[in-house]
Amino acid sequence: MEWGIIHGVSWVAVDWGTSNLRIWLMSQESQVIAQNTSNQGMASLGSADEFEQVLFECLQPILTYGEILPVICCGMVGAKQGWHDVGYSTVPHNPLEYQTPIPVPTKHSQLWVWVLPGLCQLHPADVMRGEETQIAGVLSHQKDFSGVVCLPGTHSKWALCGAGQVLSFSTFMTGELFALLSQQSVLRHSVSHDHWHEDEFIQGVHDALNNPAQFTNELFCIRARDILGDGAVGFGKARLSGLLIGMELAGTCELWQGQKVMLLGDSALQLLYKLAMDQVKVDVVLVNATQMTLAGLTAAYEKQG
Amino acid sequence: MEWGIIHGVSWVAVDWGTSNLRIWLMSQESQVIAQNTSNQGMASLGSADEFEQVLFECLQPILTYGEILPVICCGMVGAKQGWHDVGYSTVPHNPLEYQTPIPVPTKHSQLWVWVLPGLCQLHPADVMRGEETQIAGVLSHQKDFSGVVCLPGTHSKWALCGAGQVLSFSTFMTGELFALLSQQSVLRHSVSHDHWHEDEFIQGVHDALNNPAQFTNELFCIRARDILGDGAVGFGKARLSGLLIGMELAGTCELWQGQKVMLLGDSALQLLYKLAMDQVKVDVVLVNATQMTLAGLTAAYEKQG
Repeated sequence: MEWGIIHGVSWVAVDWGTSNLRIWLMSQESQVIAQNTSNQGMASLGSADEFEQVLFECLQPILTYGEILPVICCGMVGAKQGWHDVGYSTVPHNPLEYQTPIPVPTKHSQLWVWVLPGLCQLHPADVMRGEETQIAGVLSHQKDFSGVVCLPGTHSKWALCGAGQVLSFSTFMTGELFALLSQQSVLRHSVSHDHWHEDEFIQGVHDALNNPAQFTNELFCIRARDILGDGAVGFGKARLSGLLIGMELAGTCELWQGQKVMLLGDSALQLLYKLAMDQVKVDVVLVNATQMTLAGLTAAYEKQG
Repeated sequence: MEWGIIHGVSWVAVDWGTSNLRIWLMSQESQVIAQNTSNQGMASLGSADEFEQVLFECLQPILTYGEILPVICCGMVGAKQGWHDVGYSTVPHNPLEYQTPIPVPTKHSQLWVWVLPGLCQLHPADVMRGEETQIAGVLSHQKDFSGVVCLPGTHSKWALCGAGQVLSFSTFMTGELFALLSQQSVLRHSVSHDHWHEDEFIQGVHDALNNPAQFTNELFCIRARDILGDGAVGFGKARLSGLLIGMELAGTCELWQGQKVMLLGDSALQLLYKLAMDQVKVDVVLVNATQMTLAGLTAAYEKQG
């Protein structure tokens, strides 16, 4: 990683996920001095040893002789298949009070590395790793937040928060199903990435929400409608997306009815989820996901002292 | 294809699907003289021309000098990406009365080839190609059959029949979703093909049927339960299978409630679907799928004369 000329780095914030490695160099006042992203995510690394090597190579240019650099990480880096299995906290959980970064042994004595545990729920069984830090970020900005945090993505999360705690959460395979169905199933012939039809998206949301029992049939109907020429050119992508997000809303309706929903994520996903939630008149607040990751890592660093 | 010493072939029945080519040599009384299967399905063939070449090579050993051999085909061979696009009949449709095999032009003058059209439904949009011949087979055995035919598979079909007609049908992406999720999603780590737990299968059927809105969440819960060690070793395969078949039952409950269901398919799938339907006390009759394909092709040949 190229950093240019850097001074005054007090600690390092790291979000190390399946696909990407994101690093922020932080000042003593926890302001971002510089940031960098690489594709050296967990999936591209062969063994636990490689994680430290990659981190060291990234940070070597800014290490000062003899000084120790604290590094706080969240994400899949703390999974069994990651660098060091740091386990999970269990809901109900107060991330600001009881966050316990786990120290990871390192060979390079200048790197002091901590990894934040994930969050799990026993009944129904569920897990998250990385999103708990974003939720901690939300709570660090708004300690008395009571409501739902929605984190759309490959495995979308819906977390119910209250009294400073994450009370419960549910994960939906929305993003992964979209990728598999649009790239590898028979629907790939009918899901063009060049077209978007908002009306098809909205109708898909309504159809899944009103009749989730028909979901695996509705998927095939996208192919059938395309074969029979029933639908605008390229309607499939929006319809598939609407059905999947509609299923997510169907499965969470007890959470969002009458609640305020904080919607994290990148802006394209946020707009799509907001459009879906507008259909059922949910009060949505858009929140920048990266800022919440950073706020969560900062809260953990500052508590650690 | 090796046929050995063959006499008295009057016509040829062909089921030419995406993956396989199945050929039966038939006597004048429409009895099977010999049969053969190859993996030269539609997916393995590059162009429309290759279909005739493959068929000719298979049948050349049994062609008699100067005599014409009629060949009746069903399946994806009649699709746009197949040998010759023969279109679809539209429901409601009486396959025995109005089946119209389409002649396909051939270069080899001894081969007279007909392909059976698929079946489509306009609202809601749906298509089948190959299964319509199996349903015709069911109706040729039992002309007054009134009830539901279930054809489990990659794209499971449920068809409502009455008065000799196919009245309506629905397709569910059950088999394709199982393959994608168990081989290519995050669930692949939790779906072992070495284990089977009938109680997990049955619970999965109930859970999807009772709460289909939770389906895309229940999928992720398989992974979470496995990570958290909550469940017997290798419970995932049976649970995933149960959820998917449960979704199919949820989406068809108006069809099967109080109806007799004829269940076609290979014996492993039949047993699984029967077990699922036993949970909701459906009256199921198991029918051999291959025999119904042959009966449907025979009915088409005999009507053609």
